[in-house]
Amino acid sequence: MPSPAPVPADPPFRSIVIVGLGLIGGSVALSIRERWPAMRVSGVDTPAVLAHALGSGAIDRAVASLETPGDADLVLLAAPVQQIIELLPTIAARQPMIVTDVGGTKRTIVDAARALPADLTFVGGHPLGGGERGGFAFARPDLFAGRPWILTPDGHRSGDAATRLSALVSGLGARPTIMTPDAHDQLMAYVSHLPQLTASALMATVGNRAGAEGLLASGKGLLDTTRLASSPADVWRDVCATNADAIGLALDDLIALLTDVRAGLQRGEIVDTLFADAARWRGELLKGVE
Amino acid sequence: MPSPAPVPADPPFRSIVIVGLGLIGGSVALSIRERWPAMRVSGVDTPAVLAHALGSGAIDRAVASLETPGDADLVLLAAPVQQIIELLPTIAARQPMIVTDVGGTKRTIVDAARALPADLTFVGGHPLGGGERGGFAFARPDLFAGRPWILTPDGHRSGDAATRLSALVSGLGARPTIMTPDAHDQLMAYVSHLPQLTASALMATVGNRAGAEGLLASGKGLLDTTRLASSPADVWRDVCATNADAIGLALDDLIALLTDVRAGLQRGEIVDTLFADAARWRGELLKGVE
Repeated sequence: MPSPAPVPADPPFRSIVIVGLGLIGGSVALSIRERWPAMRVSGVDTPAVLAHALGSGAIDRAVASLETPGDADLVLLAAPVQQIIELLPTIAARQPMIVTDVGGTKRTIVDAARALPADLTFVGGHPLGGGERGGFAFARPDLFAGRPWILTPDGHRSGDAATRLSALVSGLGARPTIMTPDAHDQLMAYVSHLPQLTASALMATVGNRAGAEGLLASGKGLLDTTRLASSPADVWRDVCATNADAIGLALDDLIALLTDVRAGLQRGEIVDTLFADAARWRGELLKGVE
Repeated sequence: MPSPAPVPADPPFRSIVIVGLGLIGGSVALSIRERWPAMRVSGVDTPAVLAHALGSGAIDRAVASLETPGDADLVLLAAPVQQIIELLPTIAARQPMIVTDVGGTKRTIVDAARALPADLTFVGGHPLGGGERGGFAFARPDLFAGRPWILTPDGHRSGDAATRLSALVSGLGARPTIMTPDAHDQLMAYVSHLPQLTASALMATVGNRAGAEGLLASGKGLLDTTRLASSPADVWRDVCATNADAIGLALDDLIALLTDVRAGLQRGEIVDTLFADAARWRGELLKGVE
């Protein structure tokens, strides 16, 4: 685990409105409460989720709509990509504010953010935490510990917003990483979207053939490899639609390699090369987390 | 976790020779020492591994070759598939014994076992434990706890050998499961071999494109999905070569599904169906381990 970034003693924002208290939004709320108890945390969600979040102390104020409270200086949109895009033009503020999001793709959202009122500054965001199951019930304050949180500021238009957001996500234990929306979407197609689709396709393929009884004879390997297979469809439908070009190229790469391997199962060399490459990159991957 | 099978108080074998003290062979040794301290455990491996295994108490006797000790009533071949096939005709016994193995494919090994001397009874075996890294250093007594251990007895020719082996692997905490070699290889192509090749291909594809720096921006999903990517090439080269027909069909299935998904990224329905299928089978998979 890389050494954590220094956590600022004072909160970089006074009052946050979190729109969507699912796994990510709920974990942001819990984490802020732990790091900066003085920071005000308001939530927008269904009445049932708001009651749960208020009851557990994750938020201290339930907000009925996007008519943000007068003291808010940050809005975090924690919803699937299409909902974020639909929410953006509806955000009304009583004062200048910073708006960010946690959507898994960034190009479409950053484009849509141009429709925001002029007194709102938008910086795209994407925390790479994630858990096996979604929803506020699975939220936890350490969800982002040691994980990257990508920010995509829009040059001079973002002012000091990216700096303040970096301080915020450092406080949540994450590693802030600055990227352009293009670079984000291309990289995520490989390191996030391809693993998700591969895990889902593997689980569906194995389940459809082996059936429930056959799955009982599986080892820990299938279990680990398909941990992502219970990810929520609504989140990923939007990711696929808004990053289809980049994900398509990543899928092409994987399909080409699997096709090579299929043709070379009887010959040792292709399998040897596959395992050597995989072990080398796995070693690199572990360096980033150990 | 299913309730464990009853563990026999007396060891079902008096004295075992384990050929190959890697992750699996070493874990069998450690597990036997824990459950049945009176059972004799001999090992065959390189001098360095034997010294390590003797020093840690995993075995109580180092054997120089396959000239098995006079008291042995069980030989366990814990090596990659091709080595098992080469070892089989070389096993010499001073008395009738049972021979089993832990190879990841069964048809080729069971065929080769017909070359064993007449006083040796062979029953194929395959424990679905497995760990991220191989070698005696990673062996542990609970490697098989709650995991399936498939046995492929050869009808009446196996006599009571399968019953005694079932008692042994139950004692190691595993769930003995009887199957034909054909059924084993077809099922494993899906629940074990396909996940391994998919994890390796995913890691190689992502690493080759994202590079070491890009991997730093990955989330926990890639980490889990590629846990198998450091598996040893020698083990898997043999598995691929000896189960190429069944693995080829499994790869065809996965490639076809990935190709469908690639064509349907922009349309919600294909992605929705993929995630619904995957979540359903993931739920079934978890029933077997929770």
